Formats: sequence, structure tokens, C-alpha cells
Amino acid sequence: MKKLAVVAFGGNALLRSGQKGTYREQLANVEQTCESLCNLLKRNYNVVIGHGNGPQVGNVMLQHEAGRAKGIEAMPMDFCVAETQGSIAYMIEMGMRNVMARNDIQRNVVTLVTMVAVNKLDPMFQNPTKPVGPYYTKEQAEAFAAETGAKYKEDPKGNGWRKVVASPRPVRINNIKVVEKLAKAGNIVVTVGGGGIPCVEESDRVTGVEAVIDKDLASALCAIEIGADEFFILTDVPKVYINFRKENEQALDTITIDEAKKYLEEGQFAEGSMAPKIRAAIMFVEHQAKIGRKAECIITEAGQLDNPHCGTRIVR
Amino acid sequence: MKKLAVVAFGGNALLRSGQKGTYREQLANVEQTCESLCNLLKRNYNVVIGHGNGPQVGNVMLQHEAGRAKGIEAMPMDFCVAETQGSIAYMIEMGMRNVMARNDIQRNVVTLVTMVAVNKLDPMFQNPTKPVGPYYTKEQAEAFAAETGAKYKEDPKGNGWRKVVASPRPVRINNIKVVEKLAKAGNIVVTVGGGGIPCVEESDRVTGVEAVIDKDLASALCAIEIGADEFFILTDVPKVYINFRKENEQALDTITIDEAKKYLEEGQFAEGSMAPKIRAAIMFVEHQAKIGRKAECIITEAGQLDNPHCGTRIVR
Repeated sequence: MKKLAVVAFGGNALLRSGQKGTYREQLANVEQTCESLCNLLKRNYNVVIGHGNGPQVGNVMLQHEAGRAKGIEAMPMDFCVAETQGSIAYMIEMGMRNVMARNDIQRNVVTLVTMVAVNKLDPMFQNPTKPVGPYYTKEQAEAFAAETGAKYKEDPKGNGWRKVVASPRPVRINNIKVVEKLAKAGNIVVTVGGGGIPCVEESDRVTGVEAVIDKDLASALCAIEIGADEFFILTDVPKVYINFRKENEQALDTITIDEAKKYLEEGQFAEGSMAPKIRAAIMFVEHQAKIGRKAECIITEAGQLDNPHCGTRIVR
Repeated sequence: MKKLAVVAFGGNALLRSGQKGTYREQLANVEQTCESLCNLLKRNYNVVIGHGNGPQVGNVMLQHEAGRAKGIEAMPMDFCVAETQGSIAYMIEMGMRNVMARNDIQRNVVTLVTMVAVNKLDPMFQNPTKPVGPYYTKEQAEAFAAETGAKYKEDPKGNGWRKVVASPRPVRINNIKVVEKLAKAGNIVVTVGGGGIPCVEESDRVTGVEAVIDKDLASALCAIEIGADEFFILTDVPKVYINFRKENEQALDTITIDEAKKYLEEGQFAEGSMAPKIRAAIMFVEHQAKIGRKAECIITEAGQLDNPHCGTRIVR
């Protein structure tokens, strides 16, 4: 019986800072990531992939903004996320197929366009803080805000004004039973791209909303719902550290949920970087512990996946 | 046992000419189309949806073109098609869910991002004729052609120069067995969006290509591969006509493949409009006849789907 893993990685694994983000560059990055993921297949896992879309959706929003001058309406976040689910998943499917061909592995790669429900009463909607898309002057931002009702905030680094949207918690993943079935049958399933297309489900109606769902939380929810044995969160360091980049920096091999919570409270992990990953790890391991399931979260970098003892393990 | 149907409709069912193509307009059009598709669910069909993306991919290309000025590379057709698979399928999923909620129908709507293989020796690659994206001046077109190697042709109506890409025949739909399984289990499956993401499969590598696959042919191939009982091609007229818009115009109720071929040869059906639909119909019915399966293709408009005797039937 194969173990079932959910693997989450950021959109910046595919569109890297410092690169121009050409199609050729992105495809090369994707294949490199897929080469690493292939190690999980060799280690006999069934795999579900949840990917981010930060830099990609930023480009889409810039393109939409530029397209306004040609008379095409700039679309809201839910629509933009859906576009990136198509394009990023396509590159991942192509990358996985090519890498598997070289490694003589036969598996289907199946991508589901995925809507993820959030609670319309989520307090995050009262105070949108997640900056998305291009920078504007104060005057442009005020004009757009008046026109569309969207909120804009000044960038603390002085780069200008940016649209901010809410980042509510994911509460339900559409078609999650289909994901589970496909993954347990051996298909590599790509889902919750960009954290999922954010929507609000009411008794008689589902509606897209202007929001961005954290891809690590969405992937954690996915891992819970399909009963994953392991949840891998890929980042750009091999392990989690305390006293990161200080003299007394210490790599962590295994930590319990309680230790993770203590370090979080101490401010050991940077917001917008390691902290949300630790929270997603806690969410998964804590839930599985509650229902009596053995489960671990591993935070590491893609290049370590050939090693069964890689990364930092968060356990109950 | 439910009958299995593939339903194909154009991207212009969702983004209509004469409208501005705002998000609100598109969502309203989608719900109207989904309301019609719901009749097939009430008539006890399992349903696979293959949709076009003409106007949508045109907008994406315009946005990409506008985004070049902001330093973002304009992506090739395969990438653009993938983007529209995400966004259009999202609107269809949302529309179907809302319409089904009103009609008290419980079904999942599942979208697969879908790569469709073409033959790299397809003669269409020698002579690209399918115009896509925005119009340019002769000078712009020549500059882009020199820069990217893409081909541009002058619009016969004098609107300027447009990129032209090949429209090769679809030869294999990726994950088609997954589509079949999901559909036969009662899920509404959205696939081959925009005719599918065009790619060439070689023994060791799959590569995206600059091409557009006809969505009716891709849907016909899908109908063949999953063993559909019926193949619906939706258009903007209730039936197929001979002597269309002439004094002796005649609506057709049922025609055989041989009659359809004869009318095609006579030039009864307009290229770029009814002719490719008739060819897709022939492809499906002829193949099913060859393997001894009873199967029909119905060409009609969405609003007729409540009537079991609607449209023009193409039979063996």
C-alpha cells in the first residue's frame, strides 16, 4: 500500500525572482521541481500537488491592467486565480510527464480546476491586508478604489500603492472526494492551485470573491480531507531554524506541535515566510492527532526529497 | 443506466459579440447556457462538456500584448489556451452549481486541464491559416514575425494583420480514461477546453505547440474515446439547413452520413461555421458505426435541449 502525500510549493519555485519569467525559464524551473518530486514517486508515494501562484497572478493582474487601455475589463481575483490554475498546472503536467518519461515511471498527472470556499463572515474580510498585483501612484489607486470599490494600501517600502485583498481561511475544498479517489488510484493530482479559487457558498448560491487563500493552509486542508499520511511543504531552505541567521542559529530535525507553537509565540518564524508554513503544519498534524491518525508534516527544500530523513518534521 | 453525452459549445456562447464581455455579462451568459444543459441532466444523461474559447483567448492575447509594454513576455498559444481552460471552466463550474442548486440536482462538476496531442507532421503546420488575437499594422506584424518566428497574414476584410497559427487534427486526448470514469460515475466533466492545449507527443518528450485545435473535432474525438451515445454540438440555430437563408431554405430533421457528405461537397455549409460542425458529426457517427455502436450527433441550439426531438440528427 502506497503512502499518500500532499506536497505544497510556492509559485516562486516556477517563476523565480531575479529571472525575467520568460516561458522558457518557467518551463526549466518547473522541470527541475518535477525532477525533485519524482523522488517521492520512486519512494512509493501517491502524490497530490498544491501549488502557489504569487508571481504568476501578479503578472496576470499587470496584463489585465494593461489590457484596460484596449477596452478589456480587468477581472477580479477569483477569475485571475482560475487563469493561473490553468497555466501553472499545464506547465506542471508537462514537466511531470517529461521527467517521468526520463525516469521510466508511468503515472497520469490530472489537474482539477478547484474552487475553495471561505466563510463570508471571516474577520479577514473586515481588514484586507494581502497586497496583490502592480504598484500604483496614490492618485491612480484612489481612482481605482472609487471606480471598483477595491481597497488599496501604501507599500511600507515606498514602492507605491497596491491593491489589498482579504486572506480568509479555507473552509471547504470542492470535489475533494474526487481528488482523494484519483490520488489513491495512483494518479498524481494537481489541485488548490494558488490556494484555490476563492468563493463563498450559501445554501442556494456559490459566488466568487476578491480574496487570496494561503496555499499552505489550502494544502493542509486538502491533506486533512483526503487523509494524507504526510504533508510536505517545500521552501528554499533544507530545514526550519530557530535563531535564523543569528550566531546561535539551530536547524530543527523533529519538533512537536507544542514546540512549534512555543517557537511561533516567541516570534522565531518570519511572517509571510516560515510562520504561515508552521501554522499549516500545526493545522494538519493537530487535526490528524485528534482523530487518532499518525501523520507528519515535513518542511524542506525540493532538492532534499530523495532523502527519507530530510527536512524538519513536525509531529504530534 | 444513464446515456452518456458529450456536449460542445463555442466560447461565443459565454462572451457574446455585441457585448463588452464584462465579468458580469459572461457570468449571466454562462448561467443561461448551464440552465439549458440542465435539461440533459433532467433527461437522465451523464454529461461531458467540451467548450470553445475563441473570444476569450483573443482577449488573453490582447492582454499579453499590452503587458509586453510592462516587461512581461507575451506567451505562446498553448499557454494562453491553458489560461482560458482555467477561467472558462471556473465560470461553467460556478454556473452549473448555481443552476443545479435551483433545480435540486446533485452532481459534481469536475474540470480537467486537458492537453491534446497533434501530429507534428500534420500538413496544417505547413500552412497556418487560423487567425488569432489582435489586429496589427503591416509594420508591427513584420516586426513581431522577425522577432518571434510567428506568421502573420492580412485580414481579407482590411482590418489589418493578424497572427495565424496551424489548426491540426487532434490525435490523442490526455487522461481520457479519467474523463470516461468520472463521467460514467455521474460527474459532469469539463474537458478539451478551447479544443485542448495543443502539444506534440514524442517517445521521450511532450512539447506545447503554437496551434489551435478545433473544439468540435476535439469534442468528437472525446465522444469517440469515451464511447458516448450521443454527441451534441450547440450553435445559434435550432437546426441545420440546406439552401440556408435562400427562398428554398429547408430545415433538416435527420440526415445520414452520406447525405451530410453530399451536402458538404455541394457547399451547403459555410466554412468557419456549419461545415466544421458537420465534419465533427461525421467523424463521430462514422467511427461509432465502424465499431458497430449505435450513436447519433445532434446539432441544435442550447435552448432546444428540453426537447428530446430537437435539432438535426446525423445518423449512420
